[in-house]
Amino acid sequence: MKRLNPHISIDCVLFGFDFENLHVLLIDRGRYDSDFKNEIVQYALPGDLIYMDEQLDEGAQRVLKDLTGLQNIFMEQFGAFGDPGRLSSESDQRWLKSIRSEPEERVVTIGYYSLVKMHDYIPVASSFARSAVWVPVNEVAELAFDHNILLDKALSALRQTLQTRPIGFNLLPPKFTLSQLQRLYEAIHNRDIDKRNFRRKIIKLGIVTELAEKQEGVAHKPARFFSFDKDRYEELLQEGFENFKL
Amino acid sequence: MKRLNPHISIDCVLFGFDFENLHVLLIDRGRYDSDFKNEIVQYALPGDLIYMDEQLDEGAQRVLKDLTGLQNIFMEQFGAFGDPGRLSSESDQRWLKSIRSEPEERVVTIGYYSLVKMHDYIPVASSFARSAVWVPVNEVAELAFDHNILLDKALSALRQTLQTRPIGFNLLPPKFTLSQLQRLYEAIHNRDIDKRNFRRKIIKLGIVTELAEKQEGVAHKPARFFSFDKDRYEELLQEGFENFKL
Repeated sequence: MKRLNPHISIDCVLFGFDFENLHVLLIDRGRYDSDFKNEIVQYALPGDLIYMDEQLDEGAQRVLKDLTGLQNIFMEQFGAFGDPGRLSSESDQRWLKSIRSEPEERVVTIGYYSLVKMHDYIPVASSFARSAVWVPVNEVAELAFDHNILLDKALSALRQTLQTRPIGFNLLPPKFTLSQLQRLYEAIHNRDIDKRNFRRKIIKLGIVTELAEKQEGVAHKPARFFSFDKDRYEELLQEGFENFKL
Repeated sequence: MKRLNPHISIDCVLFGFDFENLHVLLIDRGRYDSDFKNEIVQYALPGDLIYMDEQLDEGAQRVLKDLTGLQNIFMEQFGAFGDPGRLSSESDQRWLKSIRSEPEERVVTIGYYSLVKMHDYIPVASSFARSAVWVPVNEVAELAFDHNILLDKALSALRQTLQTRPIGFNLLPPKFTLSQLQRLYEAIHNRDIDKRNFRRKIIKLGIVTELAEKQEGVAHKPARFFSFDKDRYEELLQEGFENFKL
């Protein structure tokens, strides 16, 4: 029988891009009302205690899979969160008492995050998750525990990473327009980006290759397709990727 | 009576610069030989379990102060380390049994780091630290637990930070030569940097101001002094600091 560590948990912030908006994967773990009926929706990040004998990285994979069915997603740490009061709200305590043997113990959680192509990952809720859904980041309401704080920190880490590594390219189709790429950056930064500046900087960076092909069957002037130059990308990573500010 | 959390610790990686080399603050916590005599030197990062009711950031301050006497140093997290076997070597277990009530429990540690002007911080060992010393990073031998791994990770975090924030300036005197500044970057990156390139990039960045004054009483050609332009620095942080690659 595996033993849970009562003091250490992992929470996963999985971002998903659908070519339009940035989403985050949430579970509905439910919330008990004052009659102890668990009938209210309460969204939370997928997270749980780790096992005593589990590596943190393995724990992150296992927790995500247990609650949402998703697996084989490389996630990175973005911080540890240990406010002693982070689990002590009345509503959170009611819920914890329903599933944990030591609900009042203080838990430090390690945050893991990643960004994936949303439509490639269809979550299926299990364990204490009653549903698992992609929610646009801009529409996230009050989450359980301190999960809004975790979400904010993960978003900062994602934006920081986008400046030092062009992580976004695997989120687009093999042939994409610069408008599609721009939309990805706008969604992550949650602001409009100047089109001309964006194109100039992206092209200067040399990691996109212009293709002969153009869009077909569109109502507007067809846009040129680009592909991602992986060799040039690897080269930039080797020699130190220049900061990519928009 | 404060209760220690048997599963969560904090380790501090405090880097110090002495105008020449990068150092790290270590404690000698001792090591028991097979006769259980604690007479062998065993260096380790200053670290300990946290209290149940303690914020992580406060814990980092408290642990550093308890072991080395140093305080009021702003430190940042650089990662959580949770290999289930990280404390299980025979030598580490012998030591843990001498000071902990639950020496075999698995402990996840949260790493905190900072960089300070070394000569401003004179450590004074206390608690289970038998001495506390600044050691050149290049001369660090085998540390207790997984502390060599933590040191490597903290060094990577420091180098990464140096690319996105000019953190080094408060480590130099108010008036400094570009050679002194270059030496700081070389010490952190542990490699030689091309002098001409360095000067060009630093001046282009606009965060140093050339002064009228020059060095006096030096054997070589006296070098020009520079000062740090704090307003320009703040401005760059606001608008997004350009990546500073050397």
